[in-house]
Amino acid sequence: MTLEAIRYRSGSLQILNQLLLPHETVYEEVRSVRDGYEAIKSMKVRGAPAIAIVGCLSLAVELRAGAGGDDLVSFIRDSLCHLTSARPTAVNMGRAARELMEFTENESMEKNTEQLRDSVIGWIEEMLERDVNDNKKIGNYGAQHILSGVPRDSVTILTHCNTGSLATAGYGTALGVVRSLHSLGRLKRLYCTETRPYNQGARLTAYEAVAEGFPATLITDSMAALAMREKGISAVVVGADRVVANGDTANKVGTYQLAIAAKHHGVPFYVAAPSTSCDLSLESGRDIVIEERPPEELTSIGGVPVAAPGIDVWNPAFDVTPHQLITGGIITELGVFLPSELQAALTGRLTAL
Amino acid sequence: MTLEAIRYRSGSLQILNQLLLPHETVYEEVRSVRDGYEAIKSMKVRGAPAIAIVGCLSLAVELRAGAGGDDLVSFIRDSLCHLTSARPTAVNMGRAARELMEFTENESMEKNTEQLRDSVIGWIEEMLERDVNDNKKIGNYGAQHILSGVPRDSVTILTHCNTGSLATAGYGTALGVVRSLHSLGRLKRLYCTETRPYNQGARLTAYEAVAEGFPATLITDSMAALAMREKGISAVVVGADRVVANGDTANKVGTYQLAIAAKHHGVPFYVAAPSTSCDLSLESGRDIVIEERPPEELTSIGGVPVAAPGIDVWNPAFDVTPHQLITGGIITELGVFLPSELQAALTGRLTAL
Repeated sequence: MTLEAIRYRSGSLQILNQLLLPHETVYEEVRSVRDGYEAIKSMKVRGAPAIAIVGCLSLAVELRAGAGGDDLVSFIRDSLCHLTSARPTAVNMGRAARELMEFTENESMEKNTEQLRDSVIGWIEEMLERDVNDNKKIGNYGAQHILSGVPRDSVTILTHCNTGSLATAGYGTALGVVRSLHSLGRLKRLYCTETRPYNQGARLTAYEAVAEGFPATLITDSMAALAMREKGISAVVVGADRVVANGDTANKVGTYQLAIAAKHHGVPFYVAAPSTSCDLSLESGRDIVIEERPPEELTSIGGVPVAAPGIDVWNPAFDVTPHQLITGGIITELGVFLPSELQAALTGRLTAL
Repeated sequence: MTLEAIRYRSGSLQILNQLLLPHETVYEEVRSVRDGYEAIKSMKVRGAPAIAIVGCLSLAVELRAGAGGDDLVSFIRDSLCHLTSARPTAVNMGRAARELMEFTENESMEKNTEQLRDSVIGWIEEMLERDVNDNKKIGNYGAQHILSGVPRDSVTILTHCNTGSLATAGYGTALGVVRSLHSLGRLKRLYCTETRPYNQGARLTAYEAVAEGFPATLITDSMAALAMREKGISAVVVGADRVVANGDTANKVGTYQLAIAAKHHGVPFYVAAPSTSCDLSLESGRDIVIEERPPEELTSIGGVPVAAPGIDVWNPAFDVTPHQLITGGIITELGVFLPSELQAALTGRLTAL
């Protein structure tokens, strides 16, 4: 089976409620912008790309049902403003809202209401398709790059956090590479770290692996180096919150430690991210501010206290892996690049578009 | 305050029930060998040195109360056999039982029952005192060695798992070094990893740190490398399950990954262990078999399921850190040695005894 976290057919949207994972698999109907806002706000859907897609698709569904009446531009503007406010720090929704609003205003000059309705819905459906296609390209480029070193063998991949169907519009980034390897029949085994403190690996990546039938093994974050020594890890592949101009990469905390262990064992370390996650306006990772999150994420699990009361906690949400440790490359929808090639590759292509 | 996990006064023994930690601090009376057996079996007390001490002290308490009657040798033999069977894999109890039985048999040749009773109780009380004193020596040697590089400054230590009062007869090994630094007024801060999957760091080390008033911060295992880069870690100090002849060290899983991260950051990495944990009969860490434990330790926490059902799990209980990564040294009650010096240091001293 293929796990669909977002089920969209024209006029109909269902999302997998991630609050109930991994114990219950429940799809919920999203019929309106109000439903979309609620799903994002309550974290039934998470992951910056997935949030943007679900937000925009909820608008498409309501538009297809005829919402907005004659003042479609105002309805779209209000809807996007509302959707963006659900999780203001998830940048993709904000960017999508700006782009869609600009498109809407331009289109409204030359089209009547029903034409405008169709073209806005079309824009949103294209956005979904483009995101999934970009992820498939990432998956294929990454798989080919990893396999180029091992002409016949299957490979064992180690990943961190969740970068699969559950975090994106579909297919996934780092987990998309794993998906491609599996569909080529070349995935020997996936090791996924549980990814403390929020356990995205144990809850979500493990769920996707079981659902997709990947041969996969869960380990604690602290076992990764031992797995590299004992289990023949062919490559480490992780996602990215942000890749900056020199290739330094901010990602879920623990990524930096994995990269150090990979370097120590001579295991290639890859970052998989769409070009939209690359931020060339920052020169190096030193410019990235590390967000710190509440202590409760460490001191209790599912509401059950697990740590000694009164202990101080440091809970940075992500860390920055310096480009020197990204020895495999940065896998984008445009190809796989060394950190030193990234800026030229992205700006060259962007100019050519 | 000083945390006492084992409270012994002649004729009276109380232990801190570790099953209730960190949420409740409850001492329980151990009045007999039967109580001692039950406390060990049910894991109210854990940690190989602590198990041996509590087992033998429970015998001392019952002997002080007059148990054994005229056939003291049989009573002691049966008691030790029973105590050893509570956790057969905890080697220290077995070794203590053999040594104490040999002592008892020798003493019984020249002493009457009441004299024998006194000398067996004396042997057990000396065992407690010796273990605590050895740990204090480890603490002091380790603290001095770490401080020798920084004449005036306070230091920041990172540790893993629990190696404190709760795992030993008292004072602790790696955490004993931290205790010594704190009592010298030279501990700036302790970072303790939560130590997945069994959370000894979050539950026990954090508890000891709060109880003792150490300035201490809990982090996930995956944040250690980031802490080394951002928080000015002066040294990493861990305990050991076993140190072999070339200095390779088996310890709680995650230790190897910490040692790699420490090497990457140029942070000295220390192992703290009494000479009784050094096993010169094995030449290298390759000879150590890695115990694998049940998947449930990863897939549920406090009975609450936290992972996707159906996922495979790899759960090695410990890993082996190669001696090349033990850059600070091995801290014993005899002094601090480089891995390459360990064998000579131990055999030289042992010959001299």
